[in-house]
Amino acid sequence: MIRFYNGRTLEPSGVTSNEVWVDGAAISYVGPARGDMPAFDREIDLRGDLIMPGFKDAHTHSGMTFLRSAADDLPLQEWLEKQVFPKEALLTPESSGAFVKVAFLEYLANGITACFDMYYHTDEFARIARQWGFRAVLCGSFTAGNDWSELYDFYKHYNHDYGPLVTAQLGFHAEYTTNREKLEDLSTVCHDLKAPVWCHNSETVSEVRGCIERHGMTPTKLFDTLGLYDYGGGGYHCIYMTEEDLDIFARRGLTAVINACSNGKLASGFFRLKEAAAKGVHLAVGTDGPASNNALDMFREMYLINIMAKLRQSDAAAGDPALILDAAVSGGARAMGLADCDAIAPGKQADLVRIDMDRPNMRPVHNVVKNLVYSGDPSNVRMTMIAGKVLYEDGAFHVGEDVQDVYRAAEEYAHAIVDG
Amino acid sequence: MIRFYNGRTLEPSGVTSNEVWVDGAAISYVGPARGDMPAFDREIDLRGDLIMPGFKDAHTHSGMTFLRSAADDLPLQEWLEKQVFPKEALLTPESSGAFVKVAFLEYLANGITACFDMYYHTDEFARIARQWGFRAVLCGSFTAGNDWSELYDFYKHYNHDYGPLVTAQLGFHAEYTTNREKLEDLSTVCHDLKAPVWCHNSETVSEVRGCIERHGMTPTKLFDTLGLYDYGGGGYHCIYMTEEDLDIFARRGLTAVINACSNGKLASGFFRLKEAAAKGVHLAVGTDGPASNNALDMFREMYLINIMAKLRQSDAAAGDPALILDAAVSGGARAMGLADCDAIAPGKQADLVRIDMDRPNMRPVHNVVKNLVYSGDPSNVRMTMIAGKVLYEDGAFHVGEDVQDVYRAAEEYAHAIVDG
Repeated sequence: MIRFYNGRTLEPSGVTSNEVWVDGAAISYVGPARGDMPAFDREIDLRGDLIMPGFKDAHTHSGMTFLRSAADDLPLQEWLEKQVFPKEALLTPESSGAFVKVAFLEYLANGITACFDMYYHTDEFARIARQWGFRAVLCGSFTAGNDWSELYDFYKHYNHDYGPLVTAQLGFHAEYTTNREKLEDLSTVCHDLKAPVWCHNSETVSEVRGCIERHGMTPTKLFDTLGLYDYGGGGYHCIYMTEEDLDIFARRGLTAVINACSNGKLASGFFRLKEAAAKGVHLAVGTDGPASNNALDMFREMYLINIMAKLRQSDAAAGDPALILDAAVSGGARAMGLADCDAIAPGKQADLVRIDMDRPNMRPVHNVVKNLVYSGDPSNVRMTMIAGKVLYEDGAFHVGEDVQDVYRAAEEYAHAIVDG
Repeated sequence: MIRFYNGRTLEPSGVTSNEVWVDGAAISYVGPARGDMPAFDREIDLRGDLIMPGFKDAHTHSGMTFLRSAADDLPLQEWLEKQVFPKEALLTPESSGAFVKVAFLEYLANGITACFDMYYHTDEFARIARQWGFRAVLCGSFTAGNDWSELYDFYKHYNHDYGPLVTAQLGFHAEYTTNREKLEDLSTVCHDLKAPVWCHNSETVSEVRGCIERHGMTPTKLFDTLGLYDYGGGGYHCIYMTEEDLDIFARRGLTAVINACSNGKLASGFFRLKEAAAKGVHLAVGTDGPASNNALDMFREMYLINIMAKLRQSDAAAGDPALILDAAVSGGARAMGLADCDAIAPGKQADLVRIDMDRPNMRPVHNVVKNLVYSGDPSNVRMTMIAGKVLYEDGAFHVGEDVQDVYRAAEEYAHAIVDG
């Protein structure tokens, strides 16, 4: 058992000074110090630091670390077609695994305890997640080239074969990479499995325009009409959403995953935070892949979501730090089907992050939530724990592999692919 | 003497693998390893890390740390009048000094080796800078309430009485807090001293509109007409600049200091990066004060400048990471009159930062400059050296004071002022 004491705790009720005890993979106690202390394996004096639930990165393409700083500053379609797709065609399970490991290190260093990943070579991804102890939800990336039977296989395989840390959700890449017939197949599968469905949705103007030309309605309306949202789910990006689209999201309890840094770097546009929040749309936060961001940093995402809301509305009073922090933590957990990883409470999974409050960017402490959103950064992450295991602490990774070996392999594969 | 070896060096010519030797306050050698090695006091094996010139934070109000996370999400005028000004009236030299120390710690932790500061209680500020070894340039904050003779006193006092690390530049707060008569006095002083002049310039629409109503011209045109730019200088923010304003800046060799995070948080607007860069306007980067930002983080500034350029132009190809990194380092040094702190070259001041390339956000290394701008963050700062002295290294501050004492004093003063 591990005991955290003498610090702050970010609980659903707000910031408290409770102790947190961890027994195995779960939180066993949250409250004041007690007389009947069990025997702890480790007692951690927080010295005022904050324990919070880990960030849930609700939209990622982890294997794309190989393109970080290799293909930047291009429009989305040109970036995809000239840089991303040709290089991705060269990926193998081995190289993809090497790149995924770099992303997992970055998640851990930045206080991210789970990611919702859509990418290639999923067996290698799931194997590494299980081996390292990283929590991951795989999202299907069904396209027009896939058969519906693959959806069943994907869903069952990744929900059963890799242990409790790896799960899967139904998903397809985007409307523009599939067709009506395939989406109808997907609807059959989703009804059969009673499962939520996810995809890239309304990321660019041209995507929405193309969908209307092809189907006479927006992507959201199309997916809803086909029954794809009958068991929940949601979309990534969700920028160019109409009022009706947002109403569908609200009515169906769908989650809009905000990807502010990616939307900024690709100049895709501004999420309609004010309108979505007013309608009560569930929100989560994702970094997108490291080629379009280029950091896997939820502090920067939270900051930029608020800044972009202010700039979009020309209103310094826009933005909502508490709402966005909640989206980055429990909103993501809700979206990813990780209901037991969303909060600090007895019985919940011990997916925890220790935030260093002794860095100057956190001082003075007038408001912990605003400090996290407006001045926090990865240097404040002292420890990242997943399912009760400390995987990162004070700059050191505890993942069972030498970090230098991870970097060496990733550098070799990345330069071979990018530089030819 | 200190030797840095086995790493990367960010030099004016680009990224090299040279060694850097430091003798006293200055860089004594940059080049390959030599047979005639002197006796070093310390030899630092960089293991691939990067040595770069420190960031120059070219617009700050350091003492405002006390308002971090205490007054957010309000429009600029309301924020100033209801939150900032009433609280600032309660500052004393003692409390202001306590808040400045928190900012200095944050600069050091984030790789910032000099700031260009406009605020109150400047004697206390200068005393702490000298005592801690932090490099600071004080900017005058002349308003309608000041007499011209104070400008002489300010300029001479802070350029002579605090040693080589503290200097001063002529400055006034903004057009809207002074008047024509005082600006004419300032012009006389600037001509007499042959000194550059600085101020907040064109930060908001209403500021520019008010100036045109009062003077029949934009702030930049007014200051130029009055001769305030005859010896150079420039402006902070510089958002609502006309073509003619930018032409004046280019022709006069003035510097526009970009404050992207502050402009975003206060919803002030977008710097015209494309137009300013096309005209060859000198650029620098500043965080502004910690109440309107809320972090003193030049990584975040560089990132956001590029992101805001892309969003403003709806063009993912907009932005220029190399230009902005140069602005954040040598552009700031140029603006602040720190010509000997701008680069890694023999004879230059040893104001250096060691960037940890062994963090996953820096891997793989396809492009060091893009890594710094698009995925770098304060967790990558391993060491900050000013004038040859290591003031920050691996999380520890070497400033001659216990950091806990600094935090304790700042917390007490801040809560007394903010919470009453």
